[in-house]
Amino acid sequence: MIGAGHLPFFYMSLDQLYSKLTVKSNAKLALVVLDGLGDIATKEQGFLTPLEAAHTPNLDGLAKEGAQGRMIPVAPGITPGSGPGHLGLFGYDPIEYQVGRGVIEALGLGVDLKPGDIAARANFCTLDPNGIVTDRRAGRIATKVTEELCALLSRKVKKVGDAEVFIKAGTGHRFVVIFRGPGLEGPLTDADPNREGLPVPDVQPTDPNSAGQRKAAELVGQFRKLALPVIAAKKPANGFLLRGIAHQPALPTFEERYGLRPACLAVYPMYKGLAQLAGMKKIEGPKTIAEQFQRYLAEYDNFNYFFIHFKYTDMYGEDGNFEAKKKAIEEFDAALPILLQKRPDVLAITGDHSTPCPVKGHSWHPQPVLLVSALSGWDKLDRFTETGANLGSLGVFESKYLIRLMQANARMFDKFGA
Amino acid sequence: MIGAGHLPFFYMSLDQLYSKLTVKSNAKLALVVLDGLGDIATKEQGFLTPLEAAHTPNLDGLAKEGAQGRMIPVAPGITPGSGPGHLGLFGYDPIEYQVGRGVIEALGLGVDLKPGDIAARANFCTLDPNGIVTDRRAGRIATKVTEELCALLSRKVKKVGDAEVFIKAGTGHRFVVIFRGPGLEGPLTDADPNREGLPVPDVQPTDPNSAGQRKAAELVGQFRKLALPVIAAKKPANGFLLRGIAHQPALPTFEERYGLRPACLAVYPMYKGLAQLAGMKKIEGPKTIAEQFQRYLAEYDNFNYFFIHFKYTDMYGEDGNFEAKKKAIEEFDAALPILLQKRPDVLAITGDHSTPCPVKGHSWHPQPVLLVSALSGWDKLDRFTETGANLGSLGVFESKYLIRLMQANARMFDKFGA
Repeated sequence: MIGAGHLPFFYMSLDQLYSKLTVKSNAKLALVVLDGLGDIATKEQGFLTPLEAAHTPNLDGLAKEGAQGRMIPVAPGITPGSGPGHLGLFGYDPIEYQVGRGVIEALGLGVDLKPGDIAARANFCTLDPNGIVTDRRAGRIATKVTEELCALLSRKVKKVGDAEVFIKAGTGHRFVVIFRGPGLEGPLTDADPNREGLPVPDVQPTDPNSAGQRKAAELVGQFRKLALPVIAAKKPANGFLLRGIAHQPALPTFEERYGLRPACLAVYPMYKGLAQLAGMKKIEGPKTIAEQFQRYLAEYDNFNYFFIHFKYTDMYGEDGNFEAKKKAIEEFDAALPILLQKRPDVLAITGDHSTPCPVKGHSWHPQPVLLVSALSGWDKLDRFTETGANLGSLGVFESKYLIRLMQANARMFDKFGA
Repeated sequence: MIGAGHLPFFYMSLDQLYSKLTVKSNAKLALVVLDGLGDIATKEQGFLTPLEAAHTPNLDGLAKEGAQGRMIPVAPGITPGSGPGHLGLFGYDPIEYQVGRGVIEALGLGVDLKPGDIAARANFCTLDPNGIVTDRRAGRIATKVTEELCALLSRKVKKVGDAEVFIKAGTGHRFVVIFRGPGLEGPLTDADPNREGLPVPDVQPTDPNSAGQRKAAELVGQFRKLALPVIAAKKPANGFLLRGIAHQPALPTFEERYGLRPACLAVYPMYKGLAQLAGMKKIEGPKTIAEQFQRYLAEYDNFNYFFIHFKYTDMYGEDGNFEAKKKAIEEFDAALPILLQKRPDVLAITGDHSTPCPVKGHSWHPQPVLLVSALSGWDKLDRFTETGANLGSLGVFESKYLIRLMQANARMFDKFGA
């Protein structure tokens, strides 16, 4: 058989090839993510998507000089969470780089995680005298109460075995617990029955053959034994649940991987956390898309890659609220001229996935992407829409290649071969 | 170098990921295959394909609410046989899962093959006194004659070495021979000169290093030595040829792989055989597409995946008969309302490959696919055609992902990651 047993002359992975070809550049790249942007045209929506229905003069203007396409977040038919969705946009294969929810939450709360740290999403809950969960959110206690409880726990439980413990309050009843010690690995199963009326299960390794997971499960178990008595007399928060327990993988940073100095302009913790994982500098402060774009202008000289995240398209898609999603797109569009005051050399506008109103949740439908640079070319499309994107020169491709197209448009790649 | 020596955090193949995310569903999925549907627009056909030229009000109706794309059966430029074409549609990578023609023929004749069985397509032929093939089809003897000859051979040769032999008559001069014994492997070379005027070659292993193939070749050789004298005095069928000699691979079934209970509504043996290989239940009886759709209605509650196969588009494509292929599509379209009486939740209509009239055979051209579900969205295309499919949201993708998109549309996948 031809090629059977064939060994290439030089073997390199595609990532290695990109790396080898990468050259430094002064170009400015901006990735603007309208979370959950993509939608579907169904009868109940008059066969229009929110993006198609919205009045978007500024996006239309960019469409008239850009290239379009659609992106598969992970693989055909797979619906990603925000983690895989964004890691793909950042150029990390989401199947190769899987990140636990606890890690993302911890990063989003500003915890300075290190590779190997185990992080758990936690929330206070109410237990009855038999240890049965009666309220998974402890009556949604105020952030201030959670902060006090976390401070108390932090004072009482600083260490389990050879691992340090860090506890950090989030909003409402939420917090995170970090375990830092040698040889720990995740993921572990949840200490959460996931509904009321059941006791809290012990955490277990997901792979019983992993010594690191066995050790981590043991330490998390010890932590629960030490921490639960500390709050046992509190009301209503006399217990806690742990979920998404995993260790932080060692991701190569943007600087290492792409030779880019990246900044994150996001409002919500999770997206800041994901950006930090890729080595982005979190820029704090802005609360609205207009403020994010203003800050981009102010920081223009300090970075050469900007990740700007807009949450509301996803939020209203999850609600199935077509009008609100359309309006969010229009508000985004209205703010866009601020960004364009200092136009990035390469601008990509897209979603991390689709959140179609008829689905009321994330979906697998490829999201539209608009890429504008001096070298993007115009696809003869007058608007940026899902239907238009189907006709674009970028075709349908996996999200993880977007950054490569952005680098190419920034002339950051040498020619391959002679 | 970036990425060198990197070990993923969790390693899993894409199939493993799909598997892990799969949830059971009561949704009904239907794959309707117009064999060889795809065509090309050339000058001699007035730059229209049969699908474009046909009057298809019912397909048009579905197009007005569905998503379209084009599918590459195996890989760019590769023309598949029916086996790889259908395995791709069933979600099995056709390069990873290669199935010999003998196996497919045997399954199509209703032989209850087991993994590891060696199967050969056979046909009676006429040999001259020197063993030269003078008629590869023995004057196209009647099925009844073949049945008598097969019965005779079955009585005389029940075993070779430690392997059982089963012989089953097909239509006309065709039959199959099965060898069931320990440690047998294929594929072997043909005992068929493939044209008249030559002697019949001995079978050989295709891989001389395979002990299983060497053993199988030895046993097939013994079978020929024992069987040929049994019919040596018969006229005109005094010899036989063996082709496509291979073992049945152990394919994971639809139930195992997708959590689906599948039924096959095909008329021709080969397609039934391919379906059986994937663990589908063969539903016997229907002879026309209208009858197949009627039977689908009757079996609606008994299965949740239906493979419905229509042969004539391929047959007329092979003939290069544009008008007949167009008419076959129109006949299919006219029967479609029967299927739609109990509309499946997810309906995919496509080909297993293209059989363009100008090619007069299978080809590599991506076939159009139409996917209709409550969540497919409408691509703003008014008809289902090759040219329209080029503009669809599904893009151009490998056939093996179709089932994944069908599963996604049936909401059979959990979200990946947080």
